[in-house]
Formats: sequence, C-alpha cells, structure tokens
Amino acid sequence: MSTRSIDLNADLGEGFGRWRMGDDLALLDIVTSANVACGFHAGDPDIMVETALAAKARGVAVGAHPGFADLRGFGRRVMPDGVQAIERDVAYQIGAMQACAALAGTRVTYVKAHGALANLANRDEAVADAVARAVKAVDPSLPLMVMPGLPAERAAEARGLGRIREIYADRGYGEDGTLLPRGEPGASISGAQAIAERVRAMVEAGAILTQAGTRIPVTIDTVCVHGDAPGAAEAARAVRAALETAGFVLAPFTAA
Amino acid sequence: MSTRSIDLNADLGEGFGRWRMGDDLALLDIVTSANVACGFHAGDPDIMVETALAAKARGVAVGAHPGFADLRGFGRRVMPDGVQAIERDVAYQIGAMQACAALAGTRVTYVKAHGALANLANRDEAVADAVARAVKAVDPSLPLMVMPGLPAERAAEARGLGRIREIYADRGYGEDGTLLPRGEPGASISGAQAIAERVRAMVEAGAILTQAGTRIPVTIDTVCVHGDAPGAAEAARAVRAALETAGFVLAPFTAA
Amino acid sequence: MSTRSIDLNADLGEGFGRWRMGDDLALLDIVTSANVACGFHAGDPDIMVETALAAKARGVAVGAHPGFADLRGFGRRVMPDGVQAIERDVAYQIGAMQACAALAGTRVTYVKAHGALANLANRDEAVADAVARAVKAVDPSLPLMVMPGLPAERAAEARGLGRIREIYADRGYGEDGTLLPRGEPGASISGAQAIAERVRAMVEAGAILTQAGTRIPVTIDTVCVHGDAPGAAEAARAVRAALETAGFVLAPFTAA
Amino acid sequence: MSTRSIDLNADLGEGFGRWRMGDDLALLDIVTSANVACGFHAGDPDIMVETALAAKARGVAVGAHPGFADLRGFGRRVMPDGVQAIERDVAYQIGAMQACAALAGTRVTYVKAHGALANLANRDEAVADAVARAVKAVDPSLPLMVMPGLPAERAAEARGLGRIREIYADRGYGEDGTLLPRGEPGASISGAQAIAERVRAMVEAGAILTQAGTRIPVTIDTVCVHGDAPGAAEAARAVRAALETAGFVLAPFTAA
Repeated sequence: MSTRSIDLNADLGEGFGRWRMGDDLALLDIVTSANVACGFHAGDPDIMVETALAAKARGVAVGAHPGFADLRGFGRRVMPDGVQAIERDVAYQIGAMQACAALAGTRVTYVKAHGALANLANRDEAVADAVARAVKAVDPSLPLMVMPGLPAERAAEARGLGRIREIYADRGYGEDGTLLPRGEPGASISGAQAIAERVRAMVEAGAILTQAGTRIPVTIDTVCVHGDAPGAAEAARAVRAALETAGFVLAPFTAA
Repeated sequence: MSTRSIDLNADLGEGFGRWRMGDDLALLDIVTSANVACGFHAGDPDIMVETALAAKARGVAVGAHPGFADLRGFGRRVMPDGVQAIERDVAYQIGAMQACAALAGTRVTYVKAHGALANLANRDEAVADAVARAVKAVDPSLPLMVMPGLPAERAAEARGLGRIREIYADRGYGEDGTLLPRGEPGASISGAQAIAERVRAMVEAGAILTQAGTRIPVTIDTVCVHGDAPGAAEAARAVRAALETAGFVLAPFTAA
Repeated sequence: MSTRSIDLNADLGEGFGRWRMGDDLALLDIVTSANVACGFHAGDPDIMVETALAAKARGVAVGAHPGFADLRGFGRRVMPDGVQAIERDVAYQIGAMQACAALAGTRVTYVKAHGALANLANRDEAVADAVARAVKAVDPSLPLMVMPGLPAERAAEARGLGRIREIYADRGYGEDGTLLPRGEPGASISGAQAIAERVRAMVEAGAILTQAGTRIPVTIDTVCVHGDAPGAAEAARAVRAALETAGFVLAPFTAA
Repeated sequence: MSTRSIDLNADLGEGFGRWRMGDDLALLDIVTSANVACGFHAGDPDIMVETALAAKARGVAVGAHPGFADLRGFGRRVMPDGVQAIERDVAYQIGAMQACAALAGTRVTYVKAHGALANLANRDEAVADAVARAVKAVDPSLPLMVMPGLPAERAAEARGLGRIREIYADRGYGEDGTLLPRGEPGASISGAQAIAERVRAMVEAGAILTQAGTRIPVTIDTVCVHGDAPGAAEAARAVRAALETAGFVLAPFTAA
C-alpha cells in the first residue's frame, strides 16, 4: 500500500574542498533522499557530483539543498538578502545542482531549503514565496520538501508546486507545529531508541506529537535525520529499523 | 539567404556585486549573442538574471560563459585544476546560468568558455574534452562556441555537440589559425574602422586572414567583439554597420 | 595656527582584482587621508599595496578601513556577526593593512570603520566597543576616525584611543547629529559649490549645521568626501579650494 | 646546554567556519610551536584568535603560516600568482596573524610558508625571495622556518632574516636533502615508533638521513609533525617522548 511507504532524508555533501562534515557514506546506506548542499553554504562541484554518484549507486533520491551564501556561517545565519536576491540565489543553486546531478547520470527530484533560509521561509511569507518562485521558474515539476502547516508549504501550494511534508526525527515541537527553539527544554531529542520510537509514533499516528503532548494531524511524507552530530548514523539506523519493523517500506518520495 | 546571416557575440555581465565592467547596455543594443559570466570568474545571480532579462528584451541570445573559479584573476589565469574538476565546474556553471535564464523567462542556447579556460581548451585536448563532456551531460542540444580548427572544436564534434565557429574582431592571427600572443606585433587591432573592415573582409572571404597575409578558409558563424576596452562599443557598432552594409543580416546563431 | 589645519579623507582602494571603483588617483591628489579597504568588503593585497604606495608618494596618510566580510554587498549590509567576530575581523583587517603599508614603505596611522559596520557602531554600543577593542589590541596608538557625539566616539574614548572627528561633505544631518537616512529630503547634498560652501561654513563654525538649521558645536578634525559618485573628484576639489580660500591648511590629521 | 633544546612544530588552526581538520588541542599539548593558517588556504579570524589563545595558554609559540589563496585546494596547489602577488599576499597574511595574536594577548614569533607555497619557495629562488621580502618588510626580527640547504633558507639569509631549520618527522629524504615526492618508495614514514626513532637519530646526528642511507649534516632547530592524518597525535607524542628520553628539552625556538 502506498500509504505504508515513507521517505528518510538527510543533509549531505556538506563539505568544502578538503573539509568534510558527517559520515556521508554511512548515511547514504540508510536514507532514501539526500539533500545535497549546492556550493553557497557548503559543497563544491566535486563534492556535489561525488554525492550524486554515491546517491545514485544506492537508489537514493537527489535533492537540491540551497542555502544562504555563507560558507563561514554554514548557512545557519540569516543573511541580509532581499527576497529578489534570495529568489535568484536559490534558482542559481538549483540549476547548479541539476547540472552536477546530470554529470553523475542522475537528476534532481526535489528541492529543500537549508538552515537559516528554511527557518526564514517558515515564518516569512515573502521569503517562502521567493523560494517557491525560484523552484517554479527552474522546473515546476520539482516538489518542495517542507514542514507541514507553515508558510513554506503554503507558498509551494500557491505556486502549484508539489509538497513533500517532513517531520524532524530529533527535534521537539511546540503547540503551533514549529520546532522548539534550540536551548528550550525538549528542543532536542537524544538517544537513538527514543528518537526512533517517537518517529514511529508520529508516522503511525499521521500527526506531529508536541512536547506538551498535543497531537497535530499532518501528512508525513518524509522524516529528516541529521548527519553531522555524534551518533547521527546510529540514530538514523534506529529510525529506519523502527519504521521497517512497523511495516513501512523505506523509499524515496520522488524517483529519478 | 541564410548564408548571409551572421552573429555578433560579446562577453557580458562581467561585474560582481557593485562592480561593473564594460557598458553592457550599449553592447546589448549591438550584439546578437551574449556570453554571460556564471559567477566563477565574474557575475553573480543578480547580474546573471539582469543580463538575461536585458538580452531577452532585445532578442539577444543568452550563452553560458563558464570560466575558472578565479574572481581575483577574472578567469584570465590558468588555474591548477585537473580535467575532472574542470568538467564539474563547467557543468555547475552551465546549470546555474540555465536557472538564471529561466528566472528571466528565457533560456541558454549555447556555451562558450571564458579566458584562460578557453585558451587552454584550444591547446589541450583533455581540457577541450572535459568542457565538451560537461556541456553534453547538462544538455547535448547546446552548441559550443569555439575557434575553428582547434582542439575545442574537435572535442565538440567528437562528443556530438553543435559548433558555432567564431573569429575575433580585434585580434591578429598567426599562420596556424591561433591568436597572436598579446604583445606581439599585430596581436591587437585598433581603430573602429580598421577592425570593422578586417571583419567584413574575413566574413566575406569565409576565411581567417593572418597577420602574414595568408588566407585560411574556415566557417565563420559569429564574430566576437570586446566590451571592456575603451571605445569598445564604438568598434562593435562599426563592425555591425560594416557587415550590414555588406548585406549580412545580424542575427543570433541560436534562438531561445 | 594648528587650529587652522584641516584634514580631508576619502574611501580609496575600493576595487577587487580587475574591478575598480572611483578615480583613486584623482582623489589622492586632493585628499590628505586615505581610508584603504582591507580585503573584506573590497580591496586585495595588490590594490592595498598600490594604494599605500600612491598615498605615500603624495604625503597622504594611510588609514585601515575595515568592513564586514561582504564582497558582494560592498560592506553596505549589516552582516549577522556577533560582536566577538566583529572584533576579530576588524583586528585581522587592521593587521593586514599594516603589513601592506609596511610593504609600501609607509604605515597605517588611523582606523576608520566602513559602511554598514560604521553605521552600526554609531548606534550600537557593543559594536562600537568591539571595534575600539580591536584597534587597541593591535596598536593602541592608532586613533579612530569617527562621527562626533555618537557611540563610536565614546567607545574610542573609553578605551583610551585617540579620536579624529569627521563631518560628511555631502550628507545632510538630523537634529541628533546623525546623518539623515538616504531618501529623506536633504539627505544628500548635490552640486560641488553647494557642498564646498556648506563644508566651509561647518568647519569655520566648528559645528554641524543640521538640515533644520540647528547648529551643533563639535570638534571637526577631518571632512569626508566621496570618491565613487559621478562628479566626486570635482566636489572634493571644490571642498579643498573653499577650505584653502578660507585660510585652512590641508594636512593629514595623522602623519606616518 | 642550549644545543640540547629542540622545537616541535605543527600546522594548526586549519579549519574554516564550522569545519575543522586534525585534533588541534591534542597537538597543542605536544608541540612547542604552532604554524597558524592565516585565512587564505584555511583559517578565519575566529579560528586564528582561538588557536593563538590555546597556544598562549600552553606556552606554545605562534607562527604565521601563510599560503596560497586557495581555500578549495587547501593551499596544496601552486596558484598562478606572480612573485609580486606572492610577496603581497604573504605580507597581508603575516599582518593579519599578528593582529589576531595581539587580540589573544600574544604575538607572532616566526613565519613558515604553507604547502605548495613552501614547496615552490624550496625550488624557485624568486619565490623564496618574495617570501623573505614580505617577512622583512612586515617585521625583520621574525625568523623564517625553512628546510635547510634550499632556496628558502638562502633567501632568508640574504635578506638578513633569522632561520629556523626544520626536518620532517614522517617524510623520507632524497640525496639532495629535499623530500621524496609522495608516492615514491620511502616518501612517507609510518608507525609512531619508526617515526620517533628516525627523528631521534637525525636530531642526535645533526644530520638528515636520506632514504639511501646518506648522512647530510645540517642544523636542526625544529621537527615538523603532522596533525591532519589518522594517528597524527600518537606519532607526535612518540616523537616528543623519544627526544625527551634522549635528553632533549622541548621548547619553542622562539618565544613571545
């Protein structure tokens, strides 16, 4: 049954030159979708092509993962870009990733905004629309991977783009369906089994389970696991195992 | 007659941030094809989209103009990149330009290598093939704009790509059909009328006319004029006028 | 009398690689202090050394002109840097400029913050102090060039640094002694003679003359002229002539 | 006896933004001199200050470690810079490092060229002299850390600079006293004990011991250990232990 299929995504290719972050190859054996950095906050053409090659070899979907032009801040800082510059930078990065994927014999099948850009698009309608316009101009068949119920999802819908709704495996949720700010109690879930169990519960329930215990029904197409923390691969593996045990088929939401 | 049609191309969008080089708008009223810098040696997403918009408004064809990753050297220095990195960097830049053109409501219709990368591809078969492979992987329908009779043209042909053969309006040629090195007598042609007259003679003859007076028959699809020297627009205008007076229709070799 | 001496400063060396901005050599024949960009918002080691050489040849004082790390935005955007990063980036840039000046056979004799960093230091005490701490750590004998009466001046004083108080030749002032925001009526003064006359009046009065006609007494050590606008050199020349006619000796506030 | 004192140096601070390379803190507990990357091939003002702080806390000498402007290639590729640009880039980096050291309450006490720049200075007299000129202009009291018997040492001597002669702990030597090219038999020494034993033998002999068994008498002031390979800290610790067992006092060649 298609409803029993679920996607697992992670940020990958987050190196630059000789620098690496996270254990990409371990994660690529676990996830089904790879959000590949496009050179602005991380990534360079070599890493982008290598990551696309490794994803293709494992049947993992390749997503363009544009971020702010901020190598030093890793795309985790809101940069002082206007919405027009954001639209153009996002388009640029998607196109660059499409070309790198083509060189690897595969193609980009979705787009997901990175870090501070994604956060901003989840609270600023104009930024959300700029990202959606960029995707639409470059390839209107590409869905946007978004958190459900927030401006980024609505902008994608308003622009006629497909949406891949995601939950975060290791982050706590507030009552409004947004992530609890880091530092607040429950903002970060730790322990591979705790993370895996919570993901299974949310996916089976078809709902976000908030820190306060509220159940917010949403469509869940994919689960985001992190790759750059210690124990990241172990937690991702536990999430995958828990979902498989619960009867889900792990598969990319999109296919090349 | 279609054989009486000729293209006029120039490097454009060669700014970065607030810096500009050359008088882009003046040149866009003269040329029929714009080689747009893709962010590695010049250009940024804002400038790329703006240049594509201005080109589209004038019916000027948009070409991706990839170069070495060398903002400080403006792509005029051979960088120590291996052929694999060259292939990937070129693909990245073409994809980025395609996306920026899409955002401007137009599309990339050809590729031309910039500066030191173009020079290297004209004497190194492996580099020429790396560029051709990149184009082929991203979009095999895109022709490469090349100097006739050199490795870059042969690589494009071997990879099944279309070729747009160009001559340089203001550069002298040696007996082997390559440009005379800058600094040698006759390497640089000056004077708008002298430049225009020589271009007309070569295009009418269907041949490169060398500094020594030899005639090397070649197909000439386009004439490259420069935009960043004093008097550049005037020389370009003279070239266009001379070709029109001689009965040629100025039109992009490729159309969006 | 030393009170009849006045300094004239301008931002210089604002190019990058092959890009240039403004007519540096024309301005260097007019001003007495050069605020030299240090590679973060503009400038590279070649341009920094060349500018220092040209300044030295004319007896023009060399100032380090640090800005935000923002080549694309030319340092005119507030970047999301914490005060610690600002302190470190400013120190880095001052040291780099000192070394480039040393290579040119001269030395840095003052520091002035650029663009958005200067604006931020004029309204944020913590940023003002970060800049002052950086100067003090690198060389406590270097004075800071600042607008009088604002946080940047107070931070310099609190850290025991010398202050060079400046007025802007072509910008209108509000009642609080800050510059009127661009776009407001009177924010920008135009016309070389109008600019020169207003500067002479303020310097002779020892006061800022606001747009509303109020006179705010301040010490004026230097007058900032701009180099990157059309007619910039002409306006700077008119300012210099008006001050000389009024009996002032144009001389660097600091000497190498 | 002063001749029984020996320095141990390593490249440190080789990160950028959130990326790190090697285990800096482990190495800082072993070495006596830290070659700190200056932002061109690695390093940023935050990392530079943090590294200087950590070095100061341990009594480790801080050296400026300039390299080619090549973040993507980590300074291991020869860039197409002329000697004048090399001189200016090296000066810029030394000045920047001096300022970052000052902010950390310490100071730069020597200079060592990085990677491809160091290799080039060991075979090209003009490049060696450009590096020496840069050091001399910025601070003629700073010694250059160099391989003995090669152009870099001679240039330092010719310019009147102090020299710190170093041997490499884990690299094999050819008959001319240069490092065997990587890939050749014996180019790389492996095994902490083998490395430590060879270093002890060379330091006690006051000679380079070549792969072929020849003994080349040289002054050895310092031993370079590497920090970015697996097992690097272990090998460095073994080198230190072997030298201490042999009666040497480990101490910086230069002191702040």
